[in-house]
Amino acid sequence: MSDQSVGSLHPFDQALQLTPAGAGEYTGATHERYWNMIGPYGGITAAAMLQAVMQHPDRLGEPVALTVNFAGPVARGPFILRARAARTNRSSQHWVIEQLQADAQGRLESVTTASAVTALRRGSFALVENTMPEAPAPETVAQVRLRRGPEWFGSYELRPVKGGPPRVWDGSDSGDSLNQLWMRDAPNRPLDYLSLTACADFFYPRIWGRRATLGPVSTVSMTVYFHTDAKLLADTGEGYLLGQSRGQVFFKGFFDMQAQLWNQQGALLATTHQTLYFKE
Amino acid sequence: MSDQSVGSLHPFDQALQLTPAGAGEYTGATHERYWNMIGPYGGITAAAMLQAVMQHPDRLGEPVALTVNFAGPVARGPFILRARAARTNRSSQHWVIEQLQADAQGRLESVTTASAVTALRRGSFALVENTMPEAPAPETVAQVRLRRGPEWFGSYELRPVKGGPPRVWDGSDSGDSLNQLWMRDAPNRPLDYLSLTACADFFYPRIWGRRATLGPVSTVSMTVYFHTDAKLLADTGEGYLLGQSRGQVFFKGFFDMQAQLWNQQGALLATTHQTLYFKE
Repeated sequence: MSDQSVGSLHPFDQALQLTPAGAGEYTGATHERYWNMIGPYGGITAAAMLQAVMQHPDRLGEPVALTVNFAGPVARGPFILRARAARTNRSSQHWVIEQLQADAQGRLESVTTASAVTALRRGSFALVENTMPEAPAPETVAQVRLRRGPEWFGSYELRPVKGGPPRVWDGSDSGDSLNQLWMRDAPNRPLDYLSLTACADFFYPRIWGRRATLGPVSTVSMTVYFHTDAKLLADTGEGYLLGQSRGQVFFKGFFDMQAQLWNQQGALLATTHQTLYFKE
Repeated sequence: MSDQSVGSLHPFDQALQLTPAGAGEYTGATHERYWNMIGPYGGITAAAMLQAVMQHPDRLGEPVALTVNFAGPVARGPFILRARAARTNRSSQHWVIEQLQADAQGRLESVTTASAVTALRRGSFALVENTMPEAPAPETVAQVRLRRGPEWFGSYELRPVKGGPPRVWDGSDSGDSLNQLWMRDAPNRPLDYLSLTACADFFYPRIWGRRATLGPVSTVSMTVYFHTDAKLLADTGEGYLLGQSRGQVFFKGFFDMQAQLWNQQGALLATTHQTLYFKE
């Protein structure tokens, strides 16, 4: 993967570089800067699924919805992305996306599936009902620097506001899994649909915060709804996002997490919901 | 569709009767009892997508997640459902589903796409963080009976608790789109994954409640996460569900709605999130 660190391209854009390989098909590769424990950071995989749509020559409009299903482990190295417009309407388009890798026998197998909706936004009415919680200005909040931790963590600037990981893993019930933090890409990068997608998976697993028990966890499926457009993204620029996440229910090996991402001006740019597997 | 009203089958089960038509392919038809204004009730379409998985001979485990994308209008009459297991792991499975209908020229076109995750639940830990709001017992709440309204509405027993549709459509801001109601199938029917899915789309559009303006609205994409198993479903039986929904953000032609469905004992059986198009 040495050829990924080319020129002055931001690592995030390096990680999402796709090469066309036929109708609706692209090749890409995992990137060391976004590596998690045993696979890529889920947020970068989600962004790659959306990138296959963003780069598709037939795309109509901008992203409204994205669902990513983490079907199997993604291995270090190359992958194939396939994006197909299942339906194109006058002002909206429905996409089906698949990420494939060769298994040990060289057979292509599905490692991630996704769907996306793109649309032309025509309205002007805008109203945030779930308003941004009060939080100290990001510059006044200490930045987390991990001495040890997964690679991808270093690709973000993180300033936790509330509900960080437990200091003691003693299995006690915290009573609440609410988590709030300021975040942005490191190094800075103007926000777009792809980085907004990646940020939506940023939160550490709610089960850890609620139970103070460190166990294997993995996202099974995540959905991101976009509430922005090119102008609002440009207005947000390289500013921080305030992320808030909360688990609603934990039940026999799976739990959900809902989250919101506001920009510093209080625009709610994305709402997201995911379900995760956890081992007891 | 006269052959749908056969024997003593519940209308909901009639509406979801599928006939195998080859590997992973089924035929079905829209049902008058679940007809909305210009197409089927979205909840019944979502349930049909899941039914194609439930009836698939290769299915592993029970539903954990379902995402349904309403790609185009569903016409009265027959449809085809295709369900494919994109990936089967030891204890989970990832499904890609598509609903097709013939267009005016007889060509099959995609009207709905979906993905689902099924899994074997192995754990025992269960905890509801988003607890059921206080509400009067369903039997003490008056049932809504519409003299005029879409057909599907009569297939549900509805007892509104809070945040019903505006009495006056004067365009005033209600300040809040929160909505709570007791609901169950009419006639009664023991809850299963399919009816839980259909209930997740029950809520009237949040934009109507927030703006007191009646305009065209349609769900673009919806995701349901299931937090239940066969035992909890059986315990719920024909009891009521308390549904709560809220819009988080309205932005230039689209808005989201998150919702929860508790049973009367306070188990949070499903959490759901959808994004909708609205015309200003």
